Amino acid sequence: MRVEVVKTVDAIRERLQPVRLSQDVLGLVPTMGAFHDGHLNLIRKARQDCGCVVVSIFVNPHQFGPGEDFRTYPQTLESDLAHCEELGVDVVFAPNVEEMYPEEPLAFVEVEKLGDHLCGVHREDHFKGVATVVLKLFGIVQPDRAYFGEKDAQQLAIVRRMVHDLNLQVQIVPVPIVRESDGLAMSSRNQYLEAEERERAPLLYRALQIAKEQIEAGETGSQAILGKARRVLEEEPLIAVDYLELVDPDEMQPVSEVTGPVRVCGAIRIGSARLIDNVLCEKTDP
Amino acid sequence: MRVEVVKTVDAIRERLQPVRLSQDVLGLVPTMGAFHDGHLNLIRKARQDCGCVVVSIFVNPHQFGPGEDFRTYPQTLESDLAHCEELGVDVVFAPNVEEMYPEEPLAFVEVEKLGDHLCGVHREDHFKGVATVVLKLFGIVQPDRAYFGEKDAQQLAIVRRMVHDLNLQVQIVPVPIVRESDGLAMSSRNQYLEAEERERAPLLYRALQIAKEQIEAGETGSQAILGKARRVLEEEPLIAVDYLELVDPDEMQPVSEVTGPVRVCGAIRIGSARLIDNVLCEKTDP
Repeated sequence: MRVEVVKTVDAIRERLQPVRLSQDVLGLVPTMGAFHDGHLNLIRKARQDCGCVVVSIFVNPHQFGPGEDFRTYPQTLESDLAHCEELGVDVVFAPNVEEMYPEEPLAFVEVEKLGDHLCGVHREDHFKGVATVVLKLFGIVQPDRAYFGEKDAQQLAIVRRMVHDLNLQVQIVPVPIVRESDGLAMSSRNQYLEAEERERAPLLYRALQIAKEQIEAGETGSQAILGKARRVLEEEPLIAVDYLELVDPDEMQPVSEVTGPVRVCGAIRIGSARLIDNVLCEKTDP
Repeated sequence: MRVEVVKTVDAIRERLQPVRLSQDVLGLVPTMGAFHDGHLNLIRKARQDCGCVVVSIFVNPHQFGPGEDFRTYPQTLESDLAHCEELGVDVVFAPNVEEMYPEEPLAFVEVEKLGDHLCGVHREDHFKGVATVVLKLFGIVQPDRAYFGEKDAQQLAIVRRMVHDLNLQVQIVPVPIVRESDGLAMSSRNQYLEAEERERAPLLYRALQIAKEQIEAGETGSQAILGKARRVLEEEPLIAVDYLELVDPDEMQPVSEVTGPVRVCGAIRIGSARLIDNVLCEKTDP
């Protein structure tokens, strides 16, 4: 039996109407397809929690900037569907661009402040596109819970704040990063890496760990912490650093002094890929 | 029996949960209170259509600009509640500002283009505040239908476009303007008018009618149509014109030549009040 695939907004609404009128918990896993183990973990978690699991697969053009990889973003629909089937997903919602944006959209959601740093600086309008498509998917599916990976920490913070500020009736469930054995965070964009690049890519996680170790050792000055971590990346000619920062985990604002939990976030360019990663750090009490 | 009044987001959600699980149609009439016959008409219409009618009463600070009348906006809660009771409203949702905005909000909805003219020019961020609070109310109440007056034609167009673009599952029901016997559109702000101002205020509707008559007589040039209409207002020293424009009814963009249905929209300042009004016009086929 193949997993059920629904392609239109009207059809998914009709399909889910009985679920909404039941007491079943409806879970949504929003994805852009090109599954890796991180996605599978999101789906497994949703399957544990929810009576009905919907996975959406939609590569949203409005979250890619000019010159970004919208046209070349990996698509592996057949294999994604096989995974959904295997993991017991109830319905896959896989609309095309015309279905999601029947005309040029004019309504957008923006979350101020939280997108002012990190990827927000390097990807103009990215989070506006993300917040808007997530809101649309929530409007279409009306899930009780929605599952997001912690790799996209800034996206997760923005979605959470959007849900809070706009009184959306959905619980956001964060799911930990899944890593390759050498520490590289799973990403659909890891496919872009040539062999040598793939070998160096784990340096991003290594840099984050160097920052984390210093924080746990009691270092509190951001500049000192980040300087050491950045050096590891700057010594590697294949890598260009987009950013490496310490931010507060809720509003994603840079901190100069570590006084509580902080997230170390980094983004690098390597070959044709742009990779991001982050770790949460807490100062160990002396 | 007094109408049921609910003041918190959690309580209204809990109250409406059984309605949502039933097949009853849930109708929302969003208001800022200070009811006049226009509001009562919205409520009557909702009562005819819906199994459960929720009226929200909330004066939203985020849709008032600096120097506008947020602090002095009329409040007539006891009388509003008496009307709700009389008209058979099921629940009144009357949160305070802290309940709706427990902290400084960062997430906002904006509808581009539709707010670029008319009131959007004179009331910066007004429609951002309106769209956002309406989305919040939709998130809280999750209505099947929501009722909006046509007096606020630009607001109505923006809410409709927001619902369309963001795939919100609510049907927007427009309700015609209610007028005093001399033509003045009902508005909570009519209370601000002194006797002499009240006497001259119907000139706004008179100007709109002059525009309409010309369009129906076959005149197609906006400048000619509006020039004649504007003269009526400019001859009255108590009145200052904010705008008088012909726009297309969907996207609220100014039209220079009447080729299809247009809305004539006007806003004036008179005494301490700012009043708006509009009429829909169709060129009569020759």
